[in-house]
Amino acid sequence: MTNPALPITSADIDSAAAVIAPFAVRTPLLSSPSLDALTGATVFLKPEVLQRTGSFKFRGAFNKLSSIPQDARAGGVVAFSSGNHAQGVAAAAQILGMQATIVMPADSPLSKRERTKGYGAEVVLYDRYTEDREAIAGAIASQRGATLVRPYDDPFVMAGQGTVGREIAQDLAALGIVPDIVVAPASGGGLVAGIAIAVKARFAEASIIVAEPAGFDDHARSMRAGHRQAHSNDSKTFCDALMALIPGELTFAVNQRLLADAVSANDAEVGAAMAFAFRDLKLVVEPGGAVALASLMSGKFDARGKTVVIVLSGGNVDADLYASIINAN
Amino acid sequence: MTNPALPITSADIDSAAAVIAPFAVRTPLLSSPSLDALTGATVFLKPEVLQRTGSFKFRGAFNKLSSIPQDARAGGVVAFSSGNHAQGVAAAAQILGMQATIVMPADSPLSKRERTKGYGAEVVLYDRYTEDREAIAGAIASQRGATLVRPYDDPFVMAGQGTVGREIAQDLAALGIVPDIVVAPASGGGLVAGIAIAVKARFAEASIIVAEPAGFDDHARSMRAGHRQAHSNDSKTFCDALMALIPGELTFAVNQRLLADAVSANDAEVGAAMAFAFRDLKLVVEPGGAVALASLMSGKFDARGKTVVIVLSGGNVDADLYASIINAN
Repeated sequence: MTNPALPITSADIDSAAAVIAPFAVRTPLLSSPSLDALTGATVFLKPEVLQRTGSFKFRGAFNKLSSIPQDARAGGVVAFSSGNHAQGVAAAAQILGMQATIVMPADSPLSKRERTKGYGAEVVLYDRYTEDREAIAGAIASQRGATLVRPYDDPFVMAGQGTVGREIAQDLAALGIVPDIVVAPASGGGLVAGIAIAVKARFAEASIIVAEPAGFDDHARSMRAGHRQAHSNDSKTFCDALMALIPGELTFAVNQRLLADAVSANDAEVGAAMAFAFRDLKLVVEPGGAVALASLMSGKFDARGKTVVIVLSGGNVDADLYASIINAN
Repeated sequence: MTNPALPITSADIDSAAAVIAPFAVRTPLLSSPSLDALTGATVFLKPEVLQRTGSFKFRGAFNKLSSIPQDARAGGVVAFSSGNHAQGVAAAAQILGMQATIVMPADSPLSKRERTKGYGAEVVLYDRYTEDREAIAGAIASQRGATLVRPYDDPFVMAGQGTVGREIAQDLAALGIVPDIVVAPASGGGLVAGIAIAVKARFAEASIIVAEPAGFDDHARSMRAGHRQAHSNDSKTFCDALMALIPGELTFAVNQRLLADAVSANDAEVGAAMAFAFRDLKLVVEPGGAVALASLMSGKFDARGKTVVIVLSGGNVDADLYASIINAN
């Protein structure tokens, strides 16, 4: 029996790369002698913290908004997001001259809310624990004729995020290096799905690993079960960007097939990784953006002697939280 | 009358590039849409914060230590430094299997002292305001038969730092972009001298500007006077890396001929630049490393409509100082 087609192909990612090229930052692959010494691996960092809006989310958002037909653009766009997708959509809408409304949790980092407004978007707050963000966004979409821009379960969004993997593969190929392992964080799983398709198109043997906050391990549970499962955690994590309840439907169709493993790191391990990034990498990484690095540093997979790519997916963290983390570690 | 030869040539920088290539990080040129929007310029950032040891100093140190004849290596090396040259020399010595002794001010950042020791160097502390670091280092050199590694006034060190400019020129040339202005911080002036030679070898019309902490403007005073002058400031700046009293002799021979201008930024402007780098660039930059960016952001030269390269020379800053700066700005 042949597998059903995946929701996107590497050709979709090639198209997305051309669409976003004039506006997205082509982030470099960085190496760190101190991280290599610490882990015994040859590590390459993909710092999406350096991306426009401070996270990879701009890629998918811009690709999606660019796909909206001209006659539908006047209605604007609406999105729900804890903050990084919010900024990505707001910035993409600003560039394309569209109105954006973003539904954000009231407890999302202040800097993320302020920066979203800074890109000209209207921000509507909701309570993460009692209200349904999809319902709120859906109501706004129908009232205003706006296009809903899902944070991950959308082929254009997934293809946009996949450009992260395409750049990783291109840069490694140019260096003549074959990656053993590529690790990316996941909330809904769009980033890691896109990366898996792009990287495995060039390096079929590479193992793609998804990293989640401890307890918010819905990808790990779903991969074990063979179908989508919610995480069981009703507590909180400071990885505000990675709190989705369950993997996306389209994203999981990819991830179930292409991912090799799922690992997780707790808040203490993530804090240590953020402090390492401050002290040794000189990169500002937000909690959710540091989960893959934390998984590497805390030995959640066997990296010694291997060539490992770590995606640092975002750097949007409030100054007071950041200050407390670097002072405590 | 022809000018006397400069102490180094771009061929020396080419040689240095080959020497350091296996061990130094080839730092990327980064762009930031938000910085372009803020300044009205097309800005490229050269983030030497991502360099091995967290500053550009590794380049010059490794090139210098590699030039020491095998029969002189057993005596080890000695250097005086507020912290970045210290780490550069210590890391280079560790790689080359040499003993390093570093004379550091007692008030240098704790992280710089600890990291210098972490590279296996012996650290000797002195009082920045009452003791003569050159005399202390000289005494150690004669006692131990060690080679003194000057922080800037040495052709091998200058050539090593010049590789920063060589990479800037190469990367811009590959993009088909001609820089109007390149700005780098200076203490003794080795970095900006090396950059000036390398950049102007490819882009003769580019203006090279040196940035200093306000009050510690010995390059500005010397350029006006036409000969080396000390700064008149007996106060302190939090730009601990940029407190040299007077430009180097060799470095000023270059800088006097090749630099277009000297600008300065005060601690408040530097703090604002560090906070901007945290929030928008997601790069950890130390005070001395942020002076060029601060000069751009505070309008100390005319950047609007121009292509400007800003060197972020180092990122070694203690967590508590960094936390206070990002919380205050």
